[in-house]
Amino acid sequence: MASGASGEDSLIARYFKPLATDAGAFALDDDAAVLKARGEDIVVTTDAIVEGVHFLPDDPPDTIARKALRVNLSDVAAKGAAPAGFVLTLALRSVDEAWLAAFAGALGEDARSFGCPLLGGDTVSTSGPLTVSITAFGRVPEGKIVHRSGAKPGDRVMVTGTIGDAALGLDILKGGPVAAALVGDPTAKELLVSRYRVPQPRNDLADAVRAHASASMDVSDGLAGDLTKLCAASGVSADIDTPLVPLSVAAAGLLGRGVVGLDGLIAGGDDYEILCTVPQARLADFTQAAGRAGVAVTEIGAIVAGTGAPRFMDAKGSEIVLTRRSYSHF
Amino acid sequence: MASGASGEDSLIARYFKPLATDAGAFALDDDAAVLKARGEDIVVTTDAIVEGVHFLPDDPPDTIARKALRVNLSDVAAKGAAPAGFVLTLALRSVDEAWLAAFAGALGEDARSFGCPLLGGDTVSTSGPLTVSITAFGRVPEGKIVHRSGAKPGDRVMVTGTIGDAALGLDILKGGPVAAALVGDPTAKELLVSRYRVPQPRNDLADAVRAHASASMDVSDGLAGDLTKLCAASGVSADIDTPLVPLSVAAAGLLGRGVVGLDGLIAGGDDYEILCTVPQARLADFTQAAGRAGVAVTEIGAIVAGTGAPRFMDAKGSEIVLTRRSYSHF
Repeated sequence: MASGASGEDSLIARYFKPLATDAGAFALDDDAAVLKARGEDIVVTTDAIVEGVHFLPDDPPDTIARKALRVNLSDVAAKGAAPAGFVLTLALRSVDEAWLAAFAGALGEDARSFGCPLLGGDTVSTSGPLTVSITAFGRVPEGKIVHRSGAKPGDRVMVTGTIGDAALGLDILKGGPVAAALVGDPTAKELLVSRYRVPQPRNDLADAVRAHASASMDVSDGLAGDLTKLCAASGVSADIDTPLVPLSVAAAGLLGRGVVGLDGLIAGGDDYEILCTVPQARLADFTQAAGRAGVAVTEIGAIVAGTGAPRFMDAKGSEIVLTRRSYSHF
Repeated sequence: MASGASGEDSLIARYFKPLATDAGAFALDDDAAVLKARGEDIVVTTDAIVEGVHFLPDDPPDTIARKALRVNLSDVAAKGAAPAGFVLTLALRSVDEAWLAAFAGALGEDARSFGCPLLGGDTVSTSGPLTVSITAFGRVPEGKIVHRSGAKPGDRVMVTGTIGDAALGLDILKGGPVAAALVGDPTAKELLVSRYRVPQPRNDLADAVRAHASASMDVSDGLAGDLTKLCAASGVSADIDTPLVPLSVAAAGLLGRGVVGLDGLIAGGDDYEILCTVPQARLADFTQAAGRAGVAVTEIGAIVAGTGAPRFMDAKGSEIVLTRRSYSHF
């Protein structure tokens, strides 16, 4: 674990060494780690989260740690890969032992439970917002990474879990209309907030994605925008039966009461669900494999020929006009 | 190239796509890259540079780009590995097209000349200092990474290039005593500043390090401090004949005039030279290989038994008292 701060080396080593369980991490005592390939392809993905942009300044350190790792694990899963490890860059304003202990403790729990050990990292001093940058690695059999670009007309559009909860959770944390609407329902509020703070990457589905999906990506910037990207990469379009989009009970309730619109749910960010396309002939096998993996998957529409943006239909078959398709931080 | 900013996707893709020359980068059109292992070990290292900490707010974008990549290439070289690619996380306050063009252009030139293509990345918005975080990859034959921990008593202590220039360059940029002393020598000033802004990683020496060195690391936080770390990892100490430490003409002149002391040179940061130990029996082969690689190497002392910090001797054989051994950013 390289550190710009020699005086802090031992402190940081103390908190992060227990996470470096892989032999290739050399207990963080060297300048670099070794990732053994074992004849497989190494999948590499990198995602940073910034205080005030991807998490809130008063979010607890344990949820910041989990989110930082999980947004990367979500990419690994969507590519059909098994987690192999990660490196961490932590840009801190100051060294707060209690904060670091909570952060490293939660990061270590997730690293263990997802089988993704810390391989190395860097800590740097910043005068700006806390920033956690992670590069995560996965393994796939050679040539078997699942791209965004393989969707074909007729393929079914599948999504895991539920969509829109995290955007509602963010609204609650910011004291928006969802917070007001749920003032008497602390359980729903807590669930939605936790979906924003601690996404649930679908790594258990990776094998099924690799075995059966024609294209796959994770939903991080909103279902509508990310499906648009998948379709563009594949040179196809899609028709989505929006009432089929899986919603949590809390989200469905808010939709029913008119607190939020369908467009806000399908264009909201931070879902970290898998969006994939499955050929009709593989659909039964895919859903059975998902069932065995314990991951809920829902068919929400179909890939169609064309190069236009995907269309989102309401219950009456009319196209929903989306004022925006994804969440933008700039 | 994932981006939090959908509206900026095309802009960023335009500047960075030309750098993604490796087939495994998928032209930055996917969520992850693939790194082919080809039966070798993948070496992983990560280092971030922060505006106001590792570079100055008015440093030009091309030198920021080169420094960000080169500090990582330096680690790859010191481990005896060949560059294989890198991922980039760029935390920006705003999107400035001219700045991005210059940054990406210089990054691309270095990526090509060092054979280290861009594999992927993430751009995030920050309200704080510009931060460039890079994770770089190298390849070594299986099990052949060169650690910090293999130094044995009797091994010679070797260092590449010259030491202390970058610390002097930083002093010049900050208007310190070195700037005043060199007011009539713009060429020396320019050379020292360029050593701070654009380090010269010694990747050409990687094969010689792997073939002959018993331990190796790069000098990033000061020769004295980094040698202390190498000795600690190896369970040994060292005696350094400080007058042998290679200095540039500019640094030697400043030392001769008393503008700086030896301690300031060997404890200054940002050298990005390779510090390695070579068994006596391999020394001739190592220096010949270094000569063929075109990298200057200098013997500065020897590893000795013991667990004390390395001793730095002056021309009379007296130990130099170091008030600090390395540069700390916190």
